[in-house]
Amino acid sequence: MRQSKFFLKTIKNIPGEETAINAQLLLRAGFIDKLMSGVYTYLPLGLKVLDKIKSIIREEMITVGGQEIYMPALQPRSLWEETKRWESMKNILFQLKGRGGSDLCLGATHEEVVVDLVRKRVNSYKDLPLALFQIQDKFRNEPRAKSGLLRGREFVMKDLYSFHTDVNNLEDYYEEVKVAYFKIFSRLGLDAKIVEASGGAFTSEYSHEFQVLTESGEDTIFWCSCGWAQNKEVCQISVGQICPACKKHKVSESRAIEVGNIFKLGQKFSRDMNLSFMDKNGKKDFITMGCYGIGPSRILGSIVEVHHDQQGIIWPATVAPYQIHLLLLDLRREASRILAEALYEKMKKMGLTVLFDERVESPGSKLKEADLVGLPIRLVISEKTNTLVEYKARNSKDVLLLSEKELLNKLITP
Amino acid sequence: MRQSKFFLKTIKNIPGEETAINAQLLLRAGFIDKLMSGVYTYLPLGLKVLDKIKSIIREEMITVGGQEIYMPALQPRSLWEETKRWESMKNILFQLKGRGGSDLCLGATHEEVVVDLVRKRVNSYKDLPLALFQIQDKFRNEPRAKSGLLRGREFVMKDLYSFHTDVNNLEDYYEEVKVAYFKIFSRLGLDAKIVEASGGAFTSEYSHEFQVLTESGEDTIFWCSCGWAQNKEVCQISVGQICPACKKHKVSESRAIEVGNIFKLGQKFSRDMNLSFMDKNGKKDFITMGCYGIGPSRILGSIVEVHHDQQGIIWPATVAPYQIHLLLLDLRREASRILAEALYEKMKKMGLTVLFDERVESPGSKLKEADLVGLPIRLVISEKTNTLVEYKARNSKDVLLLSEKELLNKLITP
Repeated sequence: MRQSKFFLKTIKNIPGEETAINAQLLLRAGFIDKLMSGVYTYLPLGLKVLDKIKSIIREEMITVGGQEIYMPALQPRSLWEETKRWESMKNILFQLKGRGGSDLCLGATHEEVVVDLVRKRVNSYKDLPLALFQIQDKFRNEPRAKSGLLRGREFVMKDLYSFHTDVNNLEDYYEEVKVAYFKIFSRLGLDAKIVEASGGAFTSEYSHEFQVLTESGEDTIFWCSCGWAQNKEVCQISVGQICPACKKHKVSESRAIEVGNIFKLGQKFSRDMNLSFMDKNGKKDFITMGCYGIGPSRILGSIVEVHHDQQGIIWPATVAPYQIHLLLLDLRREASRILAEALYEKMKKMGLTVLFDERVESPGSKLKEADLVGLPIRLVISEKTNTLVEYKARNSKDVLLLSEKELLNKLITP
Repeated sequence: MRQSKFFLKTIKNIPGEETAINAQLLLRAGFIDKLMSGVYTYLPLGLKVLDKIKSIIREEMITVGGQEIYMPALQPRSLWEETKRWESMKNILFQLKGRGGSDLCLGATHEEVVVDLVRKRVNSYKDLPLALFQIQDKFRNEPRAKSGLLRGREFVMKDLYSFHTDVNNLEDYYEEVKVAYFKIFSRLGLDAKIVEASGGAFTSEYSHEFQVLTESGEDTIFWCSCGWAQNKEVCQISVGQICPACKKHKVSESRAIEVGNIFKLGQKFSRDMNLSFMDKNGKKDFITMGCYGIGPSRILGSIVEVHHDQQGIIWPATVAPYQIHLLLLDLRREASRILAEALYEKMKKMGLTVLFDERVESPGSKLKEADLVGLPIRLVISEKTNTLVEYKARNSKDVLLLSEKELLNKLITP
């Protein structure tokens, strides 16, 4: 993509109330626009990253047998009355009126809708197990929406729901999804730790959170280098005390970001909503459920919280909007222009994604902006590099001067 | 995909109020589920078709220079006050309250948000022309949501917005998008006709609609075989009268579905919201705009309205959820099973998408269901076909008996 034609506008002044690093950097670097508190537009660069995050999550969900569906945001009060959550989740549910005064809400989660869907279609053990997921926008009327993409009022969610004949079958699947989650976070460039958690508003059953350590997360977790202690809600350990698990290390404290959670819902929702099946012996029983969330938009923010420096974002290659930032610093020099144009076309033909900065701007501002945007590889062509190309990885200080041939070889086998 | 593992449940009883053919067939064939009036869940088959429709539209939008973004559904009242549409569109806008009693609405369209986005970032003729599009869910509090996917209260929309220095530049781009739209509809298997239209609620400027003729559309259009007459709102011609354009044919009447619309917005929104730029001479002017809509979910419904028969849906190959429906009718016969399994694996390796019905069901119900679901090619293996495979295209009555080799050749060069 030629940057002169690209809707990428880095900005200097960002809204004063944006204190989170992810929001500051994503706004400044032109990945998102802020419409109002907790509500953002994804600009071309931001949408590309979001789509890559979604694709990685989708792939791993399909690997664990998930079948993709797409449920509505608009939901009728009647379903939420069945689980008594119309009242109990009132605080964060956006409730609104439809035609004729009907009561509706915007989906903050989809247990009600998915259970209604499945109870209309599943009635035998032969239909189980079943795993359905969606990647869809959710709405929560958050009291504090001050963490950029970490806590939106409108946000993207991948929610997987699993349906089983019994707890043992759920347990097996739950472990399978746990492994898939670690794989997802690793592919996304996040080092996530699993933490036992109490269920919060959604369930009183047993659950796990996946946490990433950062300087500006919303959660505090207590942990030990032998493994992980429990989170603050159930933790009886003080910082500095000896870890009860290994009896060797002292317990530390960190602010962390929850990047995913998994719940054993058991029969909670199937009892509330009468989701049952006939077992092998013709006996009726309630279906046992699990649910598994990851927020792609929150992940986007988390990646920035973890991968940045003073100059800007440092995108992991797996989610970078483009792999290469090609900077032509000296537009007046014909030899530079010819070299840059030829290299741009060659790299595109090789299947590499390239953002080509051929704008009439000062070299200083181009270099600064490239660091802010944070693509994995920066290539510079200028009078100084002459017939060579300067190669620099965003996550390294090393600068190489390479011939075109050397460069193309390096890009094939990084 | 093995059908025994697939979340596909055709149903016999559909809600009585669903009178539209598209809703009846899509519900019965297991493509969608109805949550409430005008609000549907896309099941695995339906989501696959929807994604293919989106991909085709996306490709053509990128071809006309569109850059993809993603704007929020939640929008603040303040922006809608600037265009005075908070009041004038009250009837179809879902309006709701946020924290602290703030007034919000759900996006029924995105002129306000996109103009706000662009006015923060564009200020020079050098930034123009610019074309931004999104594929996103919209909400309209429809008084009549009785046409299935043709008129949802929550629906998918592709909306492209273009920004220009002057009307001439808009006119050129408008013609370019017109061509792209015809290409889109043709790829989607829809024969769309262009109709001049008055703008309706959104604009008083000049606009065009793309209409597809069906038996159960929502619009009536008057037309002539020489080309198209105007739609009913501006039409002064009676049915049977001589067409004023060609003076040869008589004017006919049809019920039709509007599958797309394009508007020359001019400076309406840029004046309301102060979206201006500096021209080449340093003079300030308002930006000239166009907007261009296609609803992928409405398209999904329209395709079914056009392509079906008494037995079910007949998917065009470009949007079919799978290309091939492989039916193994005789599970007890080992030779049939081996042939079907081998063929399934071979076709997958060839890159073909196959739904493999290997369920324990009666041959009659499998054949009936295949016609209802409507994949382009049906292959049958049974005791009757012996070592051969029965080949039938959904849109043809011809049945061929082919050897595996003949079949694979046919699938490569259809």
